[in-house]
Amino acid sequence: MKIVKFGGSSLATSEQIEKVFQIVTSDVERKIIVVSAPGKRFPDDIKVTDLLISCAQLSLQGKDYSKEFNQIIQRYSEIANGLGLSEDITNEISLGIELSLSSKKDHPARYMDAVMACGEDNCARLVASYFQLKELEASYINPKEAGLFVTNEPGHAQVLAKSYEKLFELRKKSGILIFPGFFGYSEEGHIVTFSRSGSDITGSVVANGVKATLYENFTDVDAVFSVNPAIIHNPKEIKELTYREMRELSYAGFNVFHDEALIPAFQAGIPVNIKNTNNPTAPGSRIVKERTLSNGPLIGIASDNGFCSIYISKYLMNREIGFGRKLLQILEENQISYEHQPSGIDDISIIIRQNQLPVELECQIINRIHDELDADHVVVERDLALIMLVGEGMRHNVGTTARASKALANAGINIEMINQGSSEVSMMFGVKSFDEKKAVQVIYEEFFSKSVI
Amino acid sequence: MKIVKFGGSSLATSEQIEKVFQIVTSDVERKIIVVSAPGKRFPDDIKVTDLLISCAQLSLQGKDYSKEFNQIIQRYSEIANGLGLSEDITNEISLGIELSLSSKKDHPARYMDAVMACGEDNCARLVASYFQLKELEASYINPKEAGLFVTNEPGHAQVLAKSYEKLFELRKKSGILIFPGFFGYSEEGHIVTFSRSGSDITGSVVANGVKATLYENFTDVDAVFSVNPAIIHNPKEIKELTYREMRELSYAGFNVFHDEALIPAFQAGIPVNIKNTNNPTAPGSRIVKERTLSNGPLIGIASDNGFCSIYISKYLMNREIGFGRKLLQILEENQISYEHQPSGIDDISIIIRQNQLPVELECQIINRIHDELDADHVVVERDLALIMLVGEGMRHNVGTTARASKALANAGINIEMINQGSSEVSMMFGVKSFDEKKAVQVIYEEFFSKSVI
Repeated sequence: MKIVKFGGSSLATSEQIEKVFQIVTSDVERKIIVVSAPGKRFPDDIKVTDLLISCAQLSLQGKDYSKEFNQIIQRYSEIANGLGLSEDITNEISLGIELSLSSKKDHPARYMDAVMACGEDNCARLVASYFQLKELEASYINPKEAGLFVTNEPGHAQVLAKSYEKLFELRKKSGILIFPGFFGYSEEGHIVTFSRSGSDITGSVVANGVKATLYENFTDVDAVFSVNPAIIHNPKEIKELTYREMRELSYAGFNVFHDEALIPAFQAGIPVNIKNTNNPTAPGSRIVKERTLSNGPLIGIASDNGFCSIYISKYLMNREIGFGRKLLQILEENQISYEHQPSGIDDISIIIRQNQLPVELECQIINRIHDELDADHVVVERDLALIMLVGEGMRHNVGTTARASKALANAGINIEMINQGSSEVSMMFGVKSFDEKKAVQVIYEEFFSKSVI
Repeated sequence: MKIVKFGGSSLATSEQIEKVFQIVTSDVERKIIVVSAPGKRFPDDIKVTDLLISCAQLSLQGKDYSKEFNQIIQRYSEIANGLGLSEDITNEISLGIELSLSSKKDHPARYMDAVMACGEDNCARLVASYFQLKELEASYINPKEAGLFVTNEPGHAQVLAKSYEKLFELRKKSGILIFPGFFGYSEEGHIVTFSRSGSDITGSVVANGVKATLYENFTDVDAVFSVNPAIIHNPKEIKELTYREMRELSYAGFNVFHDEALIPAFQAGIPVNIKNTNNPTAPGSRIVKERTLSNGPLIGIASDNGFCSIYISKYLMNREIGFGRKLLQILEENQISYEHQPSGIDDISIIIRQNQLPVELECQIINRIHDELDADHVVVERDLALIMLVGEGMRHNVGTTARASKALANAGINIEMINQGSSEVSMMFGVKSFDEKKAVQVIYEEFFSKSVI
């Protein structure tokens, strides 16, 4: 049994949903279909989920949301018409969304979640209706009835362990099951969504629950690329990668697959196949537990910017038990999560995402570090980028650091930071943001253009 | 005014003390002399301080210490005789040490400190007597009267700020002042020692107090070497280095100068000149605030072994605010200080000195990390060495990492860890202990044999 998840672009139009139908019916193993909300039809289009968010926000502010609401209904209506479905389904969808929008607003975050979930929920109803119209045995599955229970953290739901056992029951149902992605139910019965792009999580959870043989994740690219195609033209595709390689790549700029979504599949040992709705015969990229190391030391290069470092120096810091802990405590009290902490003898730098550190908070934190830790110097440096080199082959390969740092040096790029030594499958270089693109290019050149792969 | 400190080997015999006399009298600026206790005369010799420690330990156990006591008196007696001093001084020293040894033992650590301090204190008395015999105006200075006040932490005294002002008064005294190193007095009037080799600290504190123009530190080597001579035969000498370069080198294996001793001199901007009692005309090594960068990117390579890493992995660790802080809390509660923390996305390694982690404690800590942090994996890896590349030139030099990592790769040495990015003047590579020597050799070869210096 295969779980097949389709992303927003695969459900954006009736033509796309027709492709979904073809894909599902071309393999009898494709039993449970998890759907996102309709996504963008063209680059400047607005996703249904974003329209729903606008509606909910306006509604919470007591403002008129009819324009956005009509845009949503228009989207569903166009799809329904294109698929040859009757007006009834559009009317039902309209009523359902209006009902959500007029529900209680005493918990704004909960209200938000309930409205947002309409995107996937109605898309699932619509797809089920279309499949039925095509005389396929198909039914919409409600996540509550299916037993997808989650923690009561609006926008950040975590699956409760008991869900898996309950979801296993889905195996007994006949026909194709259309399951809305992105949300589950709290034990109190409220709709709670996963973080954005969370339909990937739903697919993975369901795959784990029913002990699927494969979790197919249909999106709009042929494969996971070894590097961001916006930086390298026509980069090498990754045919097979391990869960942890995918996780490391997802961290910095690889948004093909929601990184939290790997866990349930990983735990059940279910391979994930990233495929393209628009080119379903392409083999795509398989995410597996182990792979043969037929490529070079690297499988991919990821990068992300918008980081800053807080540099703290204090003479004899390294003799002071508790210094690092107190420093992290100050960050924690300000709800700041940190990424890395390179350290010298008497100094330490904390790398964080700089959107967590507005200037006002920066001043407060600098003052606290000075006052409470008696630091000699505290300096914040902004606009850093992290370049992540990922590959299982790295462990067996002396000289990866030398090749990467040489490539950067030859390009005149200064390495602000290196973090290597904990992960067996990744190595991280910090550079100035303005060097990010160049850095990725020269490392790609070194490992992917030169090596025999 | 110059402060001149002589180490134990410079005071080990009457011949050495004669050299001290020549050095002091050859420069009228050499006004305050700080002395260690008599050190080793030959490699297997026992330092007077070590004999004093043995006496104090035996005494605390209620055992006979007469053998060690006699050895100590014998040392002083031989020196006194060699210098042509009368028996009186040896008898005074003998009485003084006996008095310390028979003092109250209700605070063993305090007792220990009082006995240990006899080594320097009597050496200062002896040197002063000799200088007087040579008809030089010279006097022994008692640290209590001079105002060297410290915290009441036996074996780990920290200078109290008020000392500096009081020490400034020493400028008014005429003649040469002989000041015993290694200890000060608590505000309650107890003798408290600095950490071992703490005479360097006394010299630096006094230099700061009297606002000296130079702090000369006489030892038994011509200069600070760029690398451990036990690893590289006849290595390059360092003529000039900055305070922070010296501090970084001291951390890992450079024991020429006590690293805590740099602070007072650094704070007052007083240059430190490391010189050789046995070759006083050699220029030695100057430690200064800023230097011209006439050498390559590196000034020295230090290394040390006996480290281990605690590797912890947990899926989605990097989203968990507080994970790192809780981890450090566990270490802190076990009084473990850590050196570095390289981190991946979902894993972190804590590098610590492995003498802090006996097997029993290792098990306890692994269990706590599993239980309290819900970690997926916790693995301890022992026998790591850290190689530290130090140099102010590094900041201005793209490619240092590339050269170093290439040299290691060419030698087939796997880099277990890289820590770079906080300190501007150092970069650290972690390798297996068995690779330490080789790693230092190839990096030395790369930066000191090839580059034009």
